[in-house]
Amino acid sequence: MKIIFEKRKSIKQVEESSSFAPKFDKNGLIPVVTSDYKTGEILMHGYMNSYALKKSIEIKQAVYFSRSRKKIWHKGKTSGFIQKIKEVRIDDDQDCVLLKVKVVGGASCHVGYRSCFYRSIPLNSLGKLKLKFKDKKKVFDPKKVYINQKNPTKL
Amino acid sequence: MKIIFEKRKSIKQVEESSSFAPKFDKNGLIPVVTSDYKTGEILMHGYMNSYALKKSIEIKQAVYFSRSRKKIWHKGKTSGFIQKIKEVRIDDDQDCVLLKVKVVGGASCHVGYRSCFYRSIPLNSLGKLKLKFKDKKKVFDPKKVYINQKNPTKL
Repeated sequence: MKIIFEKRKSIKQVEESSSFAPKFDKNGLIPVVTSDYKTGEILMHGYMNSYALKKSIEIKQAVYFSRSRKKIWHKGKTSGFIQKIKEVRIDDDQDCVLLKVKVVGGASCHVGYRSCFYRSIPLNSLGKLKLKFKDKKKVFDPKKVYINQKNPTKL
Repeated sequence: MKIIFEKRKSIKQVEESSSFAPKFDKNGLIPVVTSDYKTGEILMHGYMNSYALKKSIEIKQAVYFSRSRKKIWHKGKTSGFIQKIKEVRIDDDQDCVLLKVKVVGGASCHVGYRSCFYRSIPLNSLGKLKLKFKDKKKVFDPKKVYINQKNPTKL
């Protein structure tokens, strides 16, 4: 037997019941927030399609859909930084997923940092704002881990 | 003087510099993850357009763009549950914002719960999954707070 999503029938069903009826956008994607299961630190923000969501729940490892590469992306397959899922949550209108994970190797960001959110936006400036680096040390060297791989960031 | 976003010129600039060059999608939106500044608990997932992001930084309160209502949404204006911004972070490729906030009144979810992520998806089941309620008590009664307002959830 496979995982089956319920049809979205009413607001009450979606918000107040135990019926699992996730909503995918017109590209077939649902946003995913990934946090460290112990510290709660937010590690990254990605997307899943229907297949990736079912697969993640089934194998208890984060499987995303890469929008830049346009394909299923089993996080950690290349880098070794597998995300073991400890808990999955869904939000009120079921159009966003929250993963609580244990990261093998301790890094989630392709730039080399533990979290993708390594820079802070100043709150008391105007004009061109200068981002502040909050994580100063990289956990790994991307050049050594992603050999011959294109950087996924799009301008 | 107003807040000015930089142009996105190179991957190095976007990922490794202090240049603030956020990326908005083709609808002009950027996803936003909002967490409690003290506990790290993830409260909600929303969107901002360029105006909302600048405004939020400027007034240090969360201002989103409501996709269902198709307008700027100063969180808490109706309910009183203003989100005071303590920190703003941006991710590696600058296409996602993280807010760390203090919530006036303690609720962030229009259904009445503290966090929108009040239900957990079981990890050891197949077929039709049954969501588990993790927050059992609502912080407020939506019927009393949102009088004559349409529920924003879309099926």
